[in-house]
Amino acid sequence: MTDRANITITLPDGSAQEHPAGVTAYDVALGIGEGLARASIGAKVDGELIDLTRPIHADARLEIVTAKAENPDALYLIRHSTAHVMAEAIQKLWPGTFLAYGPPVDGGFYYDIQCPHAISEEDFGAIEAEMKKIAKEDRPFTRYEMTREDALKKLADDEFKTDNVNRADGDVMSFYATGAPGENWEDLCRGPHVPSTKKIGAFKIMSVAGAYWHGDADSIQLQRIYGTSFPGKKELKKHLALLEEAKKRDHRVLGKQLELFTINPLVGSGLILWMPKGAILRSVLEDYMQSELVKLGYDPVYTPHIGNIELYKTSGHYPYYSDSQFPPIKMRDDNTEYLLKPMNCPHHIMIYKALPRSYRDLPVRLAEFGTVYRFEQSGELTGMTRVRGFTQDDAHLFVTPEQVEEEFRITIGLVQEVFRTLKFEDVVVRLSLHDPDSDKFAGDPAVWEKAENTIRKVMDDLGFPYIEARGEAAFYGPKVDFVVKDCIGRSWQLGTVQLDYVLPERFDLEYVGPDNQMHRPVMIHRAPFGSLERFCGVLIEHFAGNFPLWLAPVQVAVLPITSEQIEYARQVVARLAEAGLRADLDGSSEKIGRKIRNAEVKKVPVMLVLGRRESENTEVALRRHGSGDHGTQGLEEAVQA
Amino acid sequence: MTDRANITITLPDGSAQEHPAGVTAYDVALGIGEGLARASIGAKVDGELIDLTRPIHADARLEIVTAKAENPDALYLIRHSTAHVMAEAIQKLWPGTFLAYGPPVDGGFYYDIQCPHAISEEDFGAIEAEMKKIAKEDRPFTRYEMTREDALKKLADDEFKTDNVNRADGDVMSFYATGAPGENWEDLCRGPHVPSTKKIGAFKIMSVAGAYWHGDADSIQLQRIYGTSFPGKKELKKHLALLEEAKKRDHRVLGKQLELFTINPLVGSGLILWMPKGAILRSVLEDYMQSELVKLGYDPVYTPHIGNIELYKTSGHYPYYSDSQFPPIKMRDDNTEYLLKPMNCPHHIMIYKALPRSYRDLPVRLAEFGTVYRFEQSGELTGMTRVRGFTQDDAHLFVTPEQVEEEFRITIGLVQEVFRTLKFEDVVVRLSLHDPDSDKFAGDPAVWEKAENTIRKVMDDLGFPYIEARGEAAFYGPKVDFVVKDCIGRSWQLGTVQLDYVLPERFDLEYVGPDNQMHRPVMIHRAPFGSLERFCGVLIEHFAGNFPLWLAPVQVAVLPITSEQIEYARQVVARLAEAGLRADLDGSSEKIGRKIRNAEVKKVPVMLVLGRRESENTEVALRRHGSGDHGTQGLEEAVQA
Repeated sequence: MTDRANITITLPDGSAQEHPAGVTAYDVALGIGEGLARASIGAKVDGELIDLTRPIHADARLEIVTAKAENPDALYLIRHSTAHVMAEAIQKLWPGTFLAYGPPVDGGFYYDIQCPHAISEEDFGAIEAEMKKIAKEDRPFTRYEMTREDALKKLADDEFKTDNVNRADGDVMSFYATGAPGENWEDLCRGPHVPSTKKIGAFKIMSVAGAYWHGDADSIQLQRIYGTSFPGKKELKKHLALLEEAKKRDHRVLGKQLELFTINPLVGSGLILWMPKGAILRSVLEDYMQSELVKLGYDPVYTPHIGNIELYKTSGHYPYYSDSQFPPIKMRDDNTEYLLKPMNCPHHIMIYKALPRSYRDLPVRLAEFGTVYRFEQSGELTGMTRVRGFTQDDAHLFVTPEQVEEEFRITIGLVQEVFRTLKFEDVVVRLSLHDPDSDKFAGDPAVWEKAENTIRKVMDDLGFPYIEARGEAAFYGPKVDFVVKDCIGRSWQLGTVQLDYVLPERFDLEYVGPDNQMHRPVMIHRAPFGSLERFCGVLIEHFAGNFPLWLAPVQVAVLPITSEQIEYARQVVARLAEAGLRADLDGSSEKIGRKIRNAEVKKVPVMLVLGRRESENTEVALRRHGSGDHGTQGLEEAVQA
Repeated sequence: MTDRANITITLPDGSAQEHPAGVTAYDVALGIGEGLARASIGAKVDGELIDLTRPIHADARLEIVTAKAENPDALYLIRHSTAHVMAEAIQKLWPGTFLAYGPPVDGGFYYDIQCPHAISEEDFGAIEAEMKKIAKEDRPFTRYEMTREDALKKLADDEFKTDNVNRADGDVMSFYATGAPGENWEDLCRGPHVPSTKKIGAFKIMSVAGAYWHGDADSIQLQRIYGTSFPGKKELKKHLALLEEAKKRDHRVLGKQLELFTINPLVGSGLILWMPKGAILRSVLEDYMQSELVKLGYDPVYTPHIGNIELYKTSGHYPYYSDSQFPPIKMRDDNTEYLLKPMNCPHHIMIYKALPRSYRDLPVRLAEFGTVYRFEQSGELTGMTRVRGFTQDDAHLFVTPEQVEEEFRITIGLVQEVFRTLKFEDVVVRLSLHDPDSDKFAGDPAVWEKAENTIRKVMDDLGFPYIEARGEAAFYGPKVDFVVKDCIGRSWQLGTVQLDYVLPERFDLEYVGPDNQMHRPVMIHRAPFGSLERFCGVLIEHFAGNFPLWLAPVQVAVLPITSEQIEYARQVVARLAEAGLRADLDGSSEKIGRKIRNAEVKKVPVMLVLGRRESENTEVALRRHGSGDHGTQGLEEAVQA
């Protein structure tokens, strides 16, 4: 303990402190205040998350992590630690349980286990009770290390953990005991963890599902137990309420209930079949977008859904992105290969190239609702929001370098307008930039800088809030992604606008300038909705299926009380159709109460109930979804309203 | 010559004649009249085309073929015979020429030859002169036969003809000499032919192209000489004039000139890139069709462009039609295969199946502008009319058996209406039926009969002219194909309506009947345009690019005389756009004459010329395509007109 040198700890506010080498983050926190020390659950040293009690031996930037739900690091520590406590509880309840792998994930954590008992929802209470006991015991998470060789000896009887050691890097393996090593429960683990079991906060076991070891269906079948935890009860409760609300809004459930779309394994996973009512939603959105585009001087085009693979070699999308693409179609007779198009740009570029272009023709703005195909892993597919085929409201602008700023500004304005119209109030922008240290980005760094500065200038001029994400640009240029919050506060990445100096080079695009010389245009890629599938999925959840009138697939349900009013009901439907309204007639033999309930379930905004009196007086009894009876009025009056 | 029995020859009018066995069609014709005998060039015996002078040994139905351009059999005989005469002429002009294969084809004939001289257009006159000599010599086409073995010996030095023998069926090979066998020119040939070289009519060598033996690029390169012939000079002249007119209307030429579409090898042969002006044409047609469909109670849907191959195994489209399909996409991780969809029906069927259906819901009419992909051989690709990817204005009606007749009638009416709107005056229908002797047709023969009778009844009720084509039905049901004549008399097969009892069975489609039992619906497949690519290609040729105003991609060209009128021109364009008209401003620095000429080349229906006077008085000087100046009028007056 003698002769230790001092080290310098720099805090987030920039202040520096001298400490003896071997100091822990807890010591530093305690030096600042007891309250902070109590609230602390871990630390970041030079950006690396570590245990609060791990000694620090060199000069470092230090950030104390306190138990706050807004801090992803805090959630990571808490959830990872809760997973350990859950595993201990399960092993205590069902001896003979083996543990495979237990990571924190978005929204919680899971542990894959091999358990002699088939765990079901009925067991969750018992597991949680056992976990509470362990938490109450306030046992410290204690780290200790050994060599790989010793670790393998220690774990020789545990197939899963032996495998984990074999997959780990480095020569030193770490274990975490909850309490004293050798006396209490422990697990092979990289860490870090919260200081003690008392700090795992408020938790809940959520669900159980089948899983395979290494995700391989030919391997051992495991049980995957999902749970979640938060610093406090209030946050857990809020999260559970949000899940409950999200469940009600789940576009997969509403999509079925409202007959919007279907997916069929005989067609293929992740491939959306738009049913008639969903097709109306989509086409209303397409028509709205098309009318905005025509106002802005865009030219619609149509292009095929496949392309010779050479096209994508030229663009640079193949083979570098082949993992996320469907494999090529190999022709039988020759060596030609076709790709299902993963994006529309090369096709639009070919249309640009089909004519000689002059500066007078620019900007050329080619737009298409272009369906593209990408191969998402089946585990990642989710209804309409994660799919394998999706229709971009795509367009490519070919502009002179002088037009870049103005066209970018107009394009950002269009996207803003679209989100405003769709009632997304909270929109943040992520500005994805290149990373000068990476070789992932094509083209001249100076051009990248210029492009990025142009975007910053436009965003600043518009006063648009944005965060910068270094290294997340497309390979051909920087991009602006729109992240919108829905009605219940969840974030969705939707539209995108991208600037591109690279593809015009690769495809040797040109235009004749006023100087009669050939010049290179710049491309802007943009899709305000992003993907119509994903956008509609998000819209369904955003509105919980209660679409505003202009978007509702069925706007008016016409409900005759008895079959005597059917003829009048047909006239009403015809009159509504004439007025451009989408009306459905319920001609079934159900009682009127049931007809109204059916229309409510289908979330039809307006119901017109037609009885004998209405029929005789050319009137309608008007109801609105969710707000009931709005009284009787004349048919024409109702149509106008 | 003694003891020969008599045979009975039955003529097309039903009359029967007794003749000695061995009688020739020529003898019979002569018996009827010398004029007929002179005009005869061949015969059909029990439906088989034979030489006029070939002996008939058994009772037979006999049809004398006279030299008439309307008779495809006459054209076959004449053209096949002209090909022989051309081959003889070429071998005489360029000794050492070998002959590979020389069939009659649509519009003429060709002969693939291996010739020491590279034949060019400049040689056509010499070949024709030589042919005329041969024709004048009036040498008879003389058939003789030998065994396969002897034929192979005789042709041992001729690689091509030896190959032809090896590919032929049967033990007896036939040769045709033009004159006396052994003395005059001859060719291995199945026949039949006209009686003599004098009967080959009026002919012309049309073109020369490269070809490969057996169509195989690794094999010997040949020269393919195309020619045509007709019974008389007048008919040949008419044909050549038609070709000249067709050339002017060629949609590939006009498609480029009017900037409608482009094809790029980097994307792929037979894959259409719709340029902005072509996209307008297509979307105007789509909008027109969509509005007709909505009136008739169709529901638009959208479906993906691929499907799991199992889908097509269930439908029966795979592997039986795999030759005309792109090969499957084979996934890397599992054995899943996806097909680019060759038709939309299975996808629409999956949408039908996504909901329980009651008889009250039927007919369900699902419509989609669905792009499908089929693999045409590259030699068969032609602009937009023969392609590898095309968009059907497709729909599938799911109806109760009781609704079949009425829905079929409405559908036929829709197709009639479409053709009327597009100014196709001359529409014939081909009713394609099953062949009871073929196993190509799925399902119960009684059901086929019933379906075919239903169609006949509808066509008869409508008074629609139709011809029946036995054995040409789809595998799942009989179909009605619409064959329209364009402005210059060429026939195009466009729309189709098909009745299907088979796919509902294969996909186990059901609905609940009024009896609360499950019933099987019937499907109607229909596409009035057929394919939008092909339809637009035909429309371009039909109108020679001079589209009626409602279809014209650019309806009005606004032509300021000098840059001083640009501002006024912009106002005019804006006013026209407001009135729903598609207007293009020519803001170039060209002289007004040149601007007018450019607009004429682009076949813009209306031109508004704006000079100082027009600008000052808010007037326009109106010109119409092809008919010149229509005087000056007020802007508002012009917009209204």
